[in-house]
Amino acid sequence: MPKTMFLETVKSEGLAHLSYLVGHGEEAAVIDPRRDCEVYVERARGRGARITHIFETHRNEDYVIGSSDLQRRTGAQIHHGAAQVADYAQSVSEGDEFAFGKLRLRVLETPGHTYDSISLVLSDASNGDDPLAAFTGDALFVGDVGRTDFFPDRRQEVAALLHESLHEKLLPLGEHVILCPAHGAGSVCGSNLAPREFSTLGYERRHNERLRMGRDEFVGFKARENHHFPPYFHTMERYNQEGAPPLDRLPVPQPLPPQAFENAMERGLMVLDARSPEAFAGAFIPGTLCCPLDAIPSYAGYFLEYDRPIGLIVERPEEIESALRYLVRMGFDDVQAVLAGGLTAWQTSGREFDHVPAVTARDLKERMEAGTDFTLLDVRGAEEFAEQHLPGALNVYLGDLPGRLDEIPRDRPITTLCSSGMRSMIAASILKARGFARVEENFGSMQACRHAGCPMEG
Amino acid sequence: MPKTMFLETVKSEGLAHLSYLVGHGEEAAVIDPRRDCEVYVERARGRGARITHIFETHRNEDYVIGSSDLQRRTGAQIHHGAAQVADYAQSVSEGDEFAFGKLRLRVLETPGHTYDSISLVLSDASNGDDPLAAFTGDALFVGDVGRTDFFPDRRQEVAALLHESLHEKLLPLGEHVILCPAHGAGSVCGSNLAPREFSTLGYERRHNERLRMGRDEFVGFKARENHHFPPYFHTMERYNQEGAPPLDRLPVPQPLPPQAFENAMERGLMVLDARSPEAFAGAFIPGTLCCPLDAIPSYAGYFLEYDRPIGLIVERPEEIESALRYLVRMGFDDVQAVLAGGLTAWQTSGREFDHVPAVTARDLKERMEAGTDFTLLDVRGAEEFAEQHLPGALNVYLGDLPGRLDEIPRDRPITTLCSSGMRSMIAASILKARGFARVEENFGSMQACRHAGCPMEG
Amino acid sequence: MPKTMFLETVKSEGLAHLSYLVGHGEEAAVIDPRRDCEVYVERARGRGARITHIFETHRNEDYVIGSSDLQRRTGAQIHHGAAQVADYAQSVSEGDEFAFGKLRLRVLETPGHTYDSISLVLSDASNGDDPLAAFTGDALFVGDVGRTDFFPDRRQEVAALLHESLHEKLLPLGEHVILCPAHGAGSVCGSNLAPREFSTLGYERRHNERLRMGRDEFVGFKARENHHFPPYFHTMERYNQEGAPPLDRLPVPQPLPPQAFENAMERGLMVLDARSPEAFAGAFIPGTLCCPLDAIPSYAGYFLEYDRPIGLIVERPEEIESALRYLVRMGFDDVQAVLAGGLTAWQTSGREFDHVPAVTARDLKERMEAGTDFTLLDVRGAEEFAEQHLPGALNVYLGDLPGRLDEIPRDRPITTLCSSGMRSMIAASILKARGFARVEENFGSMQACRHAGCPMEG
Amino acid sequence: MPKTMFLETVKSEGLAHLSYLVGHGEEAAVIDPRRDCEVYVERARGRGARITHIFETHRNEDYVIGSSDLQRRTGAQIHHGAAQVADYAQSVSEGDEFAFGKLRLRVLETPGHTYDSISLVLSDASNGDDPLAAFTGDALFVGDVGRTDFFPDRRQEVAALLHESLHEKLLPLGEHVILCPAHGAGSVCGSNLAPREFSTLGYERRHNERLRMGRDEFVGFKARENHHFPPYFHTMERYNQEGAPPLDRLPVPQPLPPQAFENAMERGLMVLDARSPEAFAGAFIPGTLCCPLDAIPSYAGYFLEYDRPIGLIVERPEEIESALRYLVRMGFDDVQAVLAGGLTAWQTSGREFDHVPAVTARDLKERMEAGTDFTLLDVRGAEEFAEQHLPGALNVYLGDLPGRLDEIPRDRPITTLCSSGMRSMIAASILKARGFARVEENFGSMQACRHAGCPMEG
Repeated sequence: MPKTMFLETVKSEGLAHLSYLVGHGEEAAVIDPRRDCEVYVERARGRGARITHIFETHRNEDYVIGSSDLQRRTGAQIHHGAAQVADYAQSVSEGDEFAFGKLRLRVLETPGHTYDSISLVLSDASNGDDPLAAFTGDALFVGDVGRTDFFPDRRQEVAALLHESLHEKLLPLGEHVILCPAHGAGSVCGSNLAPREFSTLGYERRHNERLRMGRDEFVGFKARENHHFPPYFHTMERYNQEGAPPLDRLPVPQPLPPQAFENAMERGLMVLDARSPEAFAGAFIPGTLCCPLDAIPSYAGYFLEYDRPIGLIVERPEEIESALRYLVRMGFDDVQAVLAGGLTAWQTSGREFDHVPAVTARDLKERMEAGTDFTLLDVRGAEEFAEQHLPGALNVYLGDLPGRLDEIPRDRPITTLCSSGMRSMIAASILKARGFARVEENFGSMQACRHAGCPMEG
Repeated sequence: MPKTMFLETVKSEGLAHLSYLVGHGEEAAVIDPRRDCEVYVERARGRGARITHIFETHRNEDYVIGSSDLQRRTGAQIHHGAAQVADYAQSVSEGDEFAFGKLRLRVLETPGHTYDSISLVLSDASNGDDPLAAFTGDALFVGDVGRTDFFPDRRQEVAALLHESLHEKLLPLGEHVILCPAHGAGSVCGSNLAPREFSTLGYERRHNERLRMGRDEFVGFKARENHHFPPYFHTMERYNQEGAPPLDRLPVPQPLPPQAFENAMERGLMVLDARSPEAFAGAFIPGTLCCPLDAIPSYAGYFLEYDRPIGLIVERPEEIESALRYLVRMGFDDVQAVLAGGLTAWQTSGREFDHVPAVTARDLKERMEAGTDFTLLDVRGAEEFAEQHLPGALNVYLGDLPGRLDEIPRDRPITTLCSSGMRSMIAASILKARGFARVEENFGSMQACRHAGCPMEG
Repeated sequence: MPKTMFLETVKSEGLAHLSYLVGHGEEAAVIDPRRDCEVYVERARGRGARITHIFETHRNEDYVIGSSDLQRRTGAQIHHGAAQVADYAQSVSEGDEFAFGKLRLRVLETPGHTYDSISLVLSDASNGDDPLAAFTGDALFVGDVGRTDFFPDRRQEVAALLHESLHEKLLPLGEHVILCPAHGAGSVCGSNLAPREFSTLGYERRHNERLRMGRDEFVGFKARENHHFPPYFHTMERYNQEGAPPLDRLPVPQPLPPQAFENAMERGLMVLDARSPEAFAGAFIPGTLCCPLDAIPSYAGYFLEYDRPIGLIVERPEEIESALRYLVRMGFDDVQAVLAGGLTAWQTSGREFDHVPAVTARDLKERMEAGTDFTLLDVRGAEEFAEQHLPGALNVYLGDLPGRLDEIPRDRPITTLCSSGMRSMIAASILKARGFARVEENFGSMQACRHAGCPMEG
Repeated sequence: MPKTMFLETVKSEGLAHLSYLVGHGEEAAVIDPRRDCEVYVERARGRGARITHIFETHRNEDYVIGSSDLQRRTGAQIHHGAAQVADYAQSVSEGDEFAFGKLRLRVLETPGHTYDSISLVLSDASNGDDPLAAFTGDALFVGDVGRTDFFPDRRQEVAALLHESLHEKLLPLGEHVILCPAHGAGSVCGSNLAPREFSTLGYERRHNERLRMGRDEFVGFKARENHHFPPYFHTMERYNQEGAPPLDRLPVPQPLPPQAFENAMERGLMVLDARSPEAFAGAFIPGTLCCPLDAIPSYAGYFLEYDRPIGLIVERPEEIESALRYLVRMGFDDVQAVLAGGLTAWQTSGREFDHVPAVTARDLKERMEAGTDFTLLDVRGAEEFAEQHLPGALNVYLGDLPGRLDEIPRDRPITTLCSSGMRSMIAASILKARGFARVEENFGSMQACRHAGCPMEG
């Protein structure tokens, strides 16, 4: 029987980062590996294939790329676009080709998201050069294209570059080419990604709104776009240029009973409470930050500091490993402690805890109708807010909240709100930690408010 | 190499039910199998052994025994004590012996907990008859002995029987015999079990308080004892006498979105919210019952009804299987639905939710000092309450709460309390579902109150 | 965040059967489920989705479809093409459409492989009707098209029907449409499948040789084609028309020690030795059939009988479950025994065993050069044989061997050969079981012979 | 509910090494950790406990102890008996006591197996000092006692020491004390271990033959005893005194196709073929060593060299991880390659392979009766051989074979034999690799011969 060709997607939840193991028979490549990279080694082993090449589609800002860690395990070569080669990688340029059994990967320079962005075109040599799939990195997503706001003073230039990459490099590959981007729905690298991870260049050409814009419209649109830029991105850039600290295994946080955990907090432990927003609302330890497990990749990077040790609070021990994976992917390796026995141990020790009352959309509606005096703090992004919001709401984006606390009145009750009730709970935890006394939270948030018939603006 | 003898404990969490796979080479027995019995088949398969005999140490009241299900899979014979043989089993009597390779299991009649209670004495025929371990069912536990309150009008008689079984049958086996009971710490079948699952007859003889009592003291003590008797025990008795409905696989509850879930509730779906007490406190759906996942075996049996379909609310899909296992072990097979998308889906749909404010031990102390008017409802068992409680507390055991709601004043705020804050949250959910408006809950409960220096009585 | 659309492939190894779970948010469909169908229930549960519809692309001949089993678990409706609706299903016709969140599945009648063959066209209603993917059943594969030899007296007619389905129904959907067929590489349902499971209609239009043929060429080619037809196909047809026996769990074969296993063999147990070909060559139990684990789906159906109980020999207990899954997928549910302790237990019991000497390609070459008198039995298919073979080889297809034993001389040594050494080992085991005394086997077979420079014909 | 006390056994197969995680609530100790030590971290995490202390019962010779690796992960202190403290550990002496919640571990000096041997006595402080279990290291096993042949010139002395440790230290702890030794059945550290891993001091006192000997009888017996001493023990001693190289993760062998694998062999790769003995007999690559997966811990240490890279041949990719674990536990970290595609890939590449004909006990009997001229090579240990053997057999212990090849006639056919057919296959592979041309192997070996009625001596 002929040897199998394989194309496996490895999705890292939260960041919605998509990496790929692709190969034929005994030879395989990995595209954009994540830092906890055993998964590629194990899958390749399961197929009897060795990983000979690692490709980085560009220098990532949102996660630590695992190329060096994977190289130490496999001896594979690391390849990066010539425009800004990572210090530990080899340079590749347009047209370079690599063989894996009968599969071929050909380099296509597709700058725009970054100057060093490349795409990799997959073909099956049994059928000649005809492309079969394209790994487009952050150039083209399902339903969206990459962001171009990393070079604020060259916005027009990079937007135009991206337009050219899309229309003169990628789309000409053909309608029939399978699209393999570096992010799926939920990524912070695009704002409009479809909630779907299967598409082709032909389907995108017809239905991806960004691809249907003319050049000028596109450049204008992209030049106006503003995405969030969490502070941890700076460290990611450095790590992905110079190489991150090697990671041979996940950190091992120590389970600490309440007294020792409290002592560690006093010595500077920064505590992430990874339980659900509802559980945090029900009872939490003063000073801790609410960040539900699967929200860590999207939001923890706004608040954690690289020079402070991290502590965790979880519902069940099984959740610790997920939290560790999320954290090391952002380079937060110093996870020292986990609260042994969880909230129950803290509570039964007689220590203080607090809670955040949850208000419903109907409560909000009644308050607004009654003219109650309170601050309605909407922590969604400015674009979301602009689209539609409740009258009288104050908008401070969650990521900006720590730096804009002085804009929030301390003499009135505050109710936080977002789209669904998750970011608003994180915001409430920040306010609580910074001494705001009367904080409530609106589960369901804007989605519920629409169903409940709250008045809307925007 | 000689074939291995094996003695594996299979623990069912929550009930703290201990069952055993014991054998040598290709032959094995199972003692007190649980209903979801694949685990024995798989472990025996892993050892290359076939299960030829199943032993029931007695007719259980607290869970559905899996003998028939395991028999249908393996063809093994089922054996039960002669005093009250289950309809589907064969009778065994004192001295009957069964061989599994070189291992032997010998029947010892050890009535007291029930009339049909037997123990099984394990020996290694290579060394003659000398006992090596004893499977004592509910006669002897680590740190405790079985309850004897199932025959209220014969309390003295059965207590005396148990004393005889312990002192004239089990202890004479020898100090060196390993103890293998049917329950570990956390069981509702004893009140004083040690938090430890390894012991010997010799260690128990010295340190198990019940074994150190003289006969009269023992009989008097046991005759006064009163354990809880959840209503589902009646169904268990019938099932374990006549045989339960066959279970070939776990039920498959349908994920229903909020609208469909709400409709099902209106048609009679009884909903268990298996999230943490803190999450329930933070936000819950009116009318649902709080029963944290691992508390299902201990408490759900007080509230569920066999003729109503059951719905589940969980934090993560992985928790569904655990909930199903817990439920079928008690014979609750009609689990029809699970809320798709969990609480978030409900909240964002704009539907109403409620919350239960958490108060701390310090809050309670201040209220008591200030003479605040509220009902402090302590839902621990009467014995726990008698030992120590807060002044002014009203004691209604959690299991009795549904039947004693009229004892609780509706015109004052209520704060529920137990030992740690778990049972009190279940109680709070019952009060809420029955229309009590102002209900708060005290996480940490008595344990926290002791640390916080609350005044105590008892 | 918007709800996720999902399209998951569930591959059943060996048969290379591909089934799909597709859906959006809380609603999902399964296309061509396999009989051991927990996988769909678990995946849907993991996504919080309920399976509301099951589609059969056609009446399968090569495996038991799991529609009824999945329906009993989920309550989903079963749909089948109108031309020959399965007894337990509802009829669907061209243009019928079903919604799963924003995803749509539209029925396309694509007869040819069978009269009742349908394809299902997936679209994302957010973007209108434009097709995104097509589930083509056995009409179109990656690199091949479905076989059309099930109606020997209507070969031209069905080939023409298939041509029409391909060119007038499927290809017009568009170049950009993702191809989701019912089989991948390794299936017995096509002879030319690519060793790759990702493609699009556009890529196939250009590179699939069958699609590049003109209508007449295609009809002529397909009308001449002859595929294998294992005897178990007849039972599959009946099962998939009338409904197979329900399967709630896998069978539980009993581990039997050598004596009991031998007794069972004497009473009619048919024994599959699922170890590697090399292990069988090294030592085997007389009368057992070599069928390496992953070859069970392809070859066991030629030899097993539905009215005889089956016994298994495996290397490690973990392999039993795989063997059981393979067997029930073909409707072989009566798996009663597994040899406890494996070959070692048999050998150390002093029972007889046999072995098959392995010869290398170089040995063969030397024998041929020396004119040694022996039968070289090539058990590949007639087409493979015709393409190239060793001079003097006798060709009897493995599947035909039991019925053509009288063509093989019993007075000379026999060396079996195939493409790689796997089918030839199965053949050797059949010859041994039927009393051929001097049987050798050529590992590496034709592939090795080509490397070793053996003379070739054809 | 009170916090749980736990006592978990972690068994490392092959070596039958038993290590323990023991603790109460949030504090735990590990006794004799293995080198791939994630298992302790994960289990402790699952219980919410942190590992604070690591105990080494003695300096091991047969595996690399994982204390340092576990310390780097957990920060725990390492403790070792005062008589010869490992360089990285702290010294403990008789009577030192350590608390883990309410559990206590008390040091008992029990020299004899080594001078630094300690036992650890477990008690539950709730019940005072009464011992509950004893971790006896290599002093006392189930059915046997530790070997005392590591100091050939002080045999009497150390045997007497051990007798004293057993009778004056361990047995006086009491009949009721649970026995927790450092090895179970199958270990190379004792010759008479029971095939059972549950016992008590009382049961051992009565039935362990070594404990029933008087002092002089015991010293005499032990002074005469001779165990095998594989060459890798020297490296273990050094590693366990000075500290082994740190191991953060398992090695990652590269899957190499036949050509590359052959090249690596030519450059010095030492190849372990971990398939079954039958598979090796059926076909093997010239020059490779047969060592069935689960025999690696017992036998690979006789043949592997620390300064040569290792290659693996396995049946299925899942077996690679097990092989790696076995190898690193003996300090063989340089595992560089695995044959991609296994034997099939090698065979179909046209490369040479060989096989070893299997003969049955009946064949042997006939040959002996017929006076056939051949060497019957029995590779069991001298004691096994002395007990009973076939007439005319030549005894060379498997471990000594490489150094005693000149004792084996090269001019006659050889048939290897052991107890069951496993060691004899390893021996056959060594003979083949060293150029012996006519080698056969007897599956079933002595066990089969007894059943087959072969003549016996001894």
